[in-house]
Amino acid sequence: MSFIHDDFLLQTDAARRLYHQFAADEPILDYHTHLPPAEIAENRRYRDLAEIWLGGDHYKWRAMRANGVPERYCTGDAEPYEKFLAWARTVPQTLRNPLYHWTHLELARYFGIDELLSEESAPRIWAAANERLASDDLTPRGIFKTFKVRAVCSTDDPVDDLHWHKQIAASDLPTGVFPTFRPDRVLDVDQPDVFNGWIEKLQAAANTSVDSLALLLDALRQRHDFFHEAGCRLSDHGLERCFAADCTEAAAAAIFDKARAGDAATPEQKEQFASYLMHYFGVLDAEKGWTKQLHLGALRNANSRLMAQLGRDVGGDSIADVPQAAPLARYLDRLEQENSLPKTVLYNLNPADNAVFATMIGNFQDGSVAGKIQWGSGWWFLDQWDGMTEQMGMLANQGLLSRFIGMLTDSRSFLSYPRHEYFRRCLCDMLGTDVERGALPDCDDLLGPLIKGVCYGNAREYLGLPE
Amino acid sequence: MSFIHDDFLLQTDAARRLYHQFAADEPILDYHTHLPPAEIAENRRYRDLAEIWLGGDHYKWRAMRANGVPERYCTGDAEPYEKFLAWARTVPQTLRNPLYHWTHLELARYFGIDELLSEESAPRIWAAANERLASDDLTPRGIFKTFKVRAVCSTDDPVDDLHWHKQIAASDLPTGVFPTFRPDRVLDVDQPDVFNGWIEKLQAAANTSVDSLALLLDALRQRHDFFHEAGCRLSDHGLERCFAADCTEAAAAAIFDKARAGDAATPEQKEQFASYLMHYFGVLDAEKGWTKQLHLGALRNANSRLMAQLGRDVGGDSIADVPQAAPLARYLDRLEQENSLPKTVLYNLNPADNAVFATMIGNFQDGSVAGKIQWGSGWWFLDQWDGMTEQMGMLANQGLLSRFIGMLTDSRSFLSYPRHEYFRRCLCDMLGTDVERGALPDCDDLLGPLIKGVCYGNAREYLGLPE
Amino acid sequence: MSFIHDDFLLQTDAARRLYHQFAADEPILDYHTHLPPAEIAENRRYRDLAEIWLGGDHYKWRAMRANGVPERYCTGDAEPYEKFLAWARTVPQTLRNPLYHWTHLELARYFGIDELLSEESAPRIWAAANERLASDDLTPRGIFKTFKVRAVCSTDDPVDDLHWHKQIAASDLPTGVFPTFRPDRVLDVDQPDVFNGWIEKLQAAANTSVDSLALLLDALRQRHDFFHEAGCRLSDHGLERCFAADCTEAAAAAIFDKARAGDAATPEQKEQFASYLMHYFGVLDAEKGWTKQLHLGALRNANSRLMAQLGRDVGGDSIADVPQAAPLARYLDRLEQENSLPKTVLYNLNPADNAVFATMIGNFQDGSVAGKIQWGSGWWFLDQWDGMTEQMGMLANQGLLSRFIGMLTDSRSFLSYPRHEYFRRCLCDMLGTDVERGALPDCDDLLGPLIKGVCYGNAREYLGLPE
Repeated sequence: MSFIHDDFLLQTDAARRLYHQFAADEPILDYHTHLPPAEIAENRRYRDLAEIWLGGDHYKWRAMRANGVPERYCTGDAEPYEKFLAWARTVPQTLRNPLYHWTHLELARYFGIDELLSEESAPRIWAAANERLASDDLTPRGIFKTFKVRAVCSTDDPVDDLHWHKQIAASDLPTGVFPTFRPDRVLDVDQPDVFNGWIEKLQAAANTSVDSLALLLDALRQRHDFFHEAGCRLSDHGLERCFAADCTEAAAAAIFDKARAGDAATPEQKEQFASYLMHYFGVLDAEKGWTKQLHLGALRNANSRLMAQLGRDVGGDSIADVPQAAPLARYLDRLEQENSLPKTVLYNLNPADNAVFATMIGNFQDGSVAGKIQWGSGWWFLDQWDGMTEQMGMLANQGLLSRFIGMLTDSRSFLSYPRHEYFRRCLCDMLGTDVERGALPDCDDLLGPLIKGVCYGNAREYLGLPE
Repeated sequence: MSFIHDDFLLQTDAARRLYHQFAADEPILDYHTHLPPAEIAENRRYRDLAEIWLGGDHYKWRAMRANGVPERYCTGDAEPYEKFLAWARTVPQTLRNPLYHWTHLELARYFGIDELLSEESAPRIWAAANERLASDDLTPRGIFKTFKVRAVCSTDDPVDDLHWHKQIAASDLPTGVFPTFRPDRVLDVDQPDVFNGWIEKLQAAANTSVDSLALLLDALRQRHDFFHEAGCRLSDHGLERCFAADCTEAAAAAIFDKARAGDAATPEQKEQFASYLMHYFGVLDAEKGWTKQLHLGALRNANSRLMAQLGRDVGGDSIADVPQAAPLARYLDRLEQENSLPKTVLYNLNPADNAVFATMIGNFQDGSVAGKIQWGSGWWFLDQWDGMTEQMGMLANQGLLSRFIGMLTDSRSFLSYPRHEYFRRCLCDMLGTDVERGALPDCDDLLGPLIKGVCYGNAREYLGLPE
Repeated sequence: MSFIHDDFLLQTDAARRLYHQFAADEPILDYHTHLPPAEIAENRRYRDLAEIWLGGDHYKWRAMRANGVPERYCTGDAEPYEKFLAWARTVPQTLRNPLYHWTHLELARYFGIDELLSEESAPRIWAAANERLASDDLTPRGIFKTFKVRAVCSTDDPVDDLHWHKQIAASDLPTGVFPTFRPDRVLDVDQPDVFNGWIEKLQAAANTSVDSLALLLDALRQRHDFFHEAGCRLSDHGLERCFAADCTEAAAAAIFDKARAGDAATPEQKEQFASYLMHYFGVLDAEKGWTKQLHLGALRNANSRLMAQLGRDVGGDSIADVPQAAPLARYLDRLEQENSLPKTVLYNLNPADNAVFATMIGNFQDGSVAGKIQWGSGWWFLDQWDGMTEQMGMLANQGLLSRFIGMLTDSRSFLSYPRHEYFRRCLCDMLGTDVERGALPDCDDLLGPLIKGVCYGNAREYLGLPE
């Protein structure tokens, strides 16, 4: 039997029945990704398996480095096949890592290959996969069709002109492609070079001068409006922890002026300024009925040598262990007090925070929308079988699994769609196990809608993306 | 087969045998609850299922809000049946939440109903349950008898006159009903209004003036004596974390005087004053052989809007992530150094602290009493299958499961007694699984006493409640 | 069937096959222990089961205290048989604690006894075991032979003259016995008595005066060289958390002078000085290709009464909950920036830090050595079935299980070698379960090398101990 088969990872009869009957055929709504809109607009064709698999995947680079593979074969100037071969040699060493499952799911689902990847099978797989890459099936449009991707959301800087999104919207692509408003750079008043460089771009994008806090707020609102017109219905923030200090408008204005003058904000001022703006972003999102996403708990760029050599997002990040509960509660509470708390999805990176996040959302459910405050699916290092199982298990214990908006790929690659399948197998395996041990009623009328909702329906209804 | 059947959640033959042979028939000692003594004394009869189920249950309110149910149907002025119906519609959405199990256990054990609750079954269940509520079986006394409740401990303010407890003690109720000494308000020197309001009540209860720290300590000791005479053998404290700062008597006296004069203590002064009093409470408990309970790690009243609208304990609390180990160790160590460490039960709310708590108790076992320092059963958000399993599993790994004093309901409701059954099923399922995988000897002479002890015998022996 | 049988704890056919085929016969490389080299050199013979089992085992003392056993029978002056009997009575109360498994594994593997220990069986087991202790099989050399122990590393103070190690090296013992460089005392500038007492010993050992920071660094390097010549290839540090503050050479020198003059360093100065020296130790280890071990997260000597009465390492330690990620990342990053990061093994004591440690190592894998930065096996309180399973599971999810250097006993006792067996059963049970649920290919060519590597081969290759 192939390693990847129809009942892969489904351990019970109930799990198998539930998966095939309710999960397998649901469409996909991939509401948080880092997919490049340009590649969708141009319907890019990929040269070879090295490019599409290894070109930007820091998960694989980390595994290769841990396997003793020199950097030349990860991010360096080795030939594509050399890189692929270095990866093929690493794959058997990744047993029990999600990469082992992802790799073979991707080979099976995109390329129809069910051989295990290793040094020995590498030449055959390289040839077969590259041949397949030449077909239309493996362009972004072909992939969206195959995987029934109804909509994807990219992650975009407010200064982006969204011309790729407009080009896509004007095309006949049946998949909705929407931007997400991610204004991380505007918080960087502690790095005036970064901050002022970004403000320059904002001035250009908003066609206005941004010489004061008031003008900054106006420009941000203008970009928010602009994104809304382009179909944006989500914002996103990547923070080590939430910012929720007291900060008056005058104090924020002074910090803004200081940073604009090239003086770095102190850590305390950074905290104040960021708190002020994060509150403002919450108000903007609430006004338009958007959904705010908070990605909390990464320790980024821990390896300075790697950062200096290769930049951000290259595999030098890990999990932080800073207190999350108090600032997060304060942030949400302030918005709630002003009746300005938007729909919100909270993502934690440290699984030790699972219970904090799972119970935090319950504090701010207000009965207006089912599952108004969501605890996001296992993110980054937690996007694996155990991480997803623990997130769904804890969510179910502390809240309503039935109202969960489910999976997203968070990926830079079009080859990540089987992660939705993987998530659905995980969900159905968990529920099937519970049915077999008598912890859930063996009742399709109860479980079917739950599964379909978590796979697709809940996200569709909750996010309200343009149809 | 009914969802709730004889072998509910017992997955192995060993589990089923152990449960039915050693656990099912043990009596209950419910040593920590928030049951209202007045309702016991008056043997209250409940009007309908909405009153007894939804009247004060913030677990259900949170689930309903998360399901998009407006506040009117949770805590508001909707009709009883409307509220019940809103809950009945929510129940199918709680699949895999402990509420789903609790709800059907309660329907089965109190009302003899084994239908699943939903919008469709709601009218039938409403009628049948309300009819049953009119019988003597579903008064507090009837419930105590049915569930073999040998003793319950309520949770009481030191200023309480305990007249309900006295009335119960003078009655022919075979169940012991004892107060617990919970002096949380005396720590509130940072909120002079609250503090002074409470001191007024203390003066009245102790029939003495409380104008100095020395007089406060005397009055507290007097109330402690008074509670002891009423059968109290436990104290309890609900704290985000332990207080264990240095504080001289003079410093505590100055902070007391300041608060009495209406000036709020600073956070540092609050810490000092609370440390001083917590130490004093430890000494009092040790002198009388009481058991001290510390409930640590809640983030309370996170939602100011809800707090302003409805007050405390309405579903706006979640799990804190503050460091627990250092202050807790310091608190216990100081008492230990003075030979004044009472029997103590430590409860954590954040499961990420499980290992800290499980190993902390081992530092202070002194060989005088088996299991002198206890790690309390899964509390509040952790009072569910996974939470209990993880607590017992970690306790067993780090200490002696066999000396564990076991389950308590911590409940405001007389309908919570099946949680003891649920806990026992969890215990026996865990042990039975271990027997079947060969991790425990298949030996009733070893396992029987362990199970009976954890279900009832250990608590009885350890707590030394009046017979 | 005996409780300890051939397939003990191996739940699936795949687990049984993998264990017996690939794990059971591998030799042992016990690279971190607290074994006393003197007892190896003298090939000590043990008087009775009380001496070898209870003489220095704080795990057992903690269990006995928790069971209500007075200190006299733990560490006091009771007769050997009385102590043994107190332990025998405690054993049935340890069900589900690792002590229950360890005890019966040790009885089976060293003494050929497969009876369960209890008060009833105590006299028989005492007699049989003591008789066996008189044979050569149960001396250190006999034990090393029986368990195929190829090498062990002890834990040693840099001031040690290593004469026992030299004596062993000059003998015909086929097992390599190597020292480990553990310089914890040199960080104690906050305790001038301890610090200066240690500096005196260092002066004697290095035969030089140590009157300045420069001379201290020279003396430490000299001892590092000396240890290297004796076959040392590992260092070790036991810290609550890593030290990684900024500290100039001048500042470190001033703190050194202050402590030498008998003035205690402030907490901030301690942090600075320790950071300076820890960096220096990293450089020394990198220069010689050693492996650095960091044991992080213990809360030590929590019980002052016990510490005053019995000293360190007597069962008064538990798990700390201090932030680990930021200082650890800073420490590793500084060495990495200077190209001076040695091979490193990170051990955490709080399982809530598992994900932090598992992902931290990935930041600093540089492709030079497979698995250069390791996350160490479950340590101390985590050295049990669940702890090992969680560590290996998380390691596999975040990194490469296949490159893991595996188990070590960390023990003071020669009776701990079955913990390697226990670990291997855990590893194979985990992998076998995954094979049976289809999460791993059922392929011995993939799994065999992984298992052999984790059991022995990886540690051998990675550590580069003298042959």
